[in-house]
Amino acid sequence: MKVVLIGSGNVATLLSPLLKKNGHKIIQVYSRTKTSAQKLAKKTGCRFTTSVKGIIETADLYLIALSDDAIAPFIKKLSFTPKLIVHTSGSVGTEVFGQKIVNYGVLYPLQSFSKNSKHTPAKIPFCIEGSNPSTQSQLKKIAKSLSPLVYQISSQERVFLHLAAVFINNFPNYLYALAEKILSRKKINFNILFPLMEETIKNAIENSPHDIQTGPARRGDIKIINKHLRLLSKEVDMKEIYRILSKNIQKEYRKQ
Amino acid sequence: MKVVLIGSGNVATLLSPLLKKNGHKIIQVYSRTKTSAQKLAKKTGCRFTTSVKGIIETADLYLIALSDDAIAPFIKKLSFTPKLIVHTSGSVGTEVFGQKIVNYGVLYPLQSFSKNSKHTPAKIPFCIEGSNPSTQSQLKKIAKSLSPLVYQISSQERVFLHLAAVFINNFPNYLYALAEKILSRKKINFNILFPLMEETIKNAIENSPHDIQTGPARRGDIKIINKHLRLLSKEVDMKEIYRILSKNIQKEYRKQ
Repeated sequence: MKVVLIGSGNVATLLSPLLKKNGHKIIQVYSRTKTSAQKLAKKTGCRFTTSVKGIIETADLYLIALSDDAIAPFIKKLSFTPKLIVHTSGSVGTEVFGQKIVNYGVLYPLQSFSKNSKHTPAKIPFCIEGSNPSTQSQLKKIAKSLSPLVYQISSQERVFLHLAAVFINNFPNYLYALAEKILSRKKINFNILFPLMEETIKNAIENSPHDIQTGPARRGDIKIINKHLRLLSKEVDMKEIYRILSKNIQKEYRKQ
Repeated sequence: MKVVLIGSGNVATLLSPLLKKNGHKIIQVYSRTKTSAQKLAKKTGCRFTTSVKGIIETADLYLIALSDDAIAPFIKKLSFTPKLIVHTSGSVGTEVFGQKIVNYGVLYPLQSFSKNSKHTPAKIPFCIEGSNPSTQSQLKKIAKSLSPLVYQISSQERVFLHLAAVFINNFPNYLYALAEKILSRKKINFNILFPLMEETIKNAIENSPHDIQTGPARRGDIKIINKHLRLLSKEVDMKEIYRILSKNIQKEYRKQ
């Protein structure tokens, strides 16, 4: 497929090599920011444009990987009817495509990727949604060409998936950063925690996380909880996070 | 080494097969709770006792795997001087061993293990601390017989390690349970999130978690944050957790 990539951020940077590797041809990158458009176009080996009017009109697929707020304004500026256009957002519905476009949909990669990361995800589940049966099956084909993990997910479901993803990716990653900070102040290398981090995930995947909860809050061990809160006495924000999470874990397991 | 295992909870259940596998002989399990003492003794293939007076006095190592609060009362009840005695707690100092015992220390497995889990951790870092150089080197030898990952860690450092472990294990596991709850209400299978969970860990291990933070709060995307808070409007506790963590992530990255 001839693809025009709309955007040059984290998601576009993740998808561009994946599309190429799997036989698609990226013919152009669009981004309002010249430097990043240029950078991704160079990496991809294609042309770029910074103006909506400069977008090639004959592509098979327009893949929007813009920030959520930028999607609607972009679509409004589009002066031609694209053959097939999708966005990649977890939180934006399909109504954003308006009335004129016929073949539209969503190709939401349920993965996290930062341009700062050295690591490209091995498995990417794709959540697809199409405006009509033929678009739906076309999107399924495209997604299947990129990953074995393809799910048909409605806009309403996708919003909850995105919310759940925040709880399993963004929030834990932030807690890791706090743990790293705690250890660095005591000059202990963060890597001592890696086996426990890996185990936490394996355990949660092989069991239901609810059934294998451990720790002071799970046991209702007020003494340790208070000791930890004292250790955090100078870290007001960390202390609040510790307090709220412990309070909720205690509440959850007291019920039982 | 001839080992008496003091306790029959999660840690004792984790360490018992590990000790056996690596050539140590568990000669007795002590626990106040008869059913669990009996169960672990049967699994281990040894005798058990529920009375401190019934503990065999000739073992090479007494391994205390009791809850934190139970350690001091147990040691006070001990009527003989053990050759070598250690506890396995992340949060209890060595002063708990009192004045009479000479060879004591800590063998803290920096792992999480629930009796409910189907999974035994592959790698267990051991943090050791000994009351004197010979105890220290003896504990190092024991720990090395159990795992390649052995760290000499003082009581004060261990307390911070334990605190950090709460942030990378107990709290993320609780957030996974919340994510599972969110999806189950929409009848979406939790396993759609597994690749993202695995990626989150790989990413945090290969990079500094602080550098690869993503998500609505990282971007300062108030619209999505508010949308998510609305989705959680009936879940007061989850909403509070979402709000506090997002507030702190926003604060952290606004600084930059």
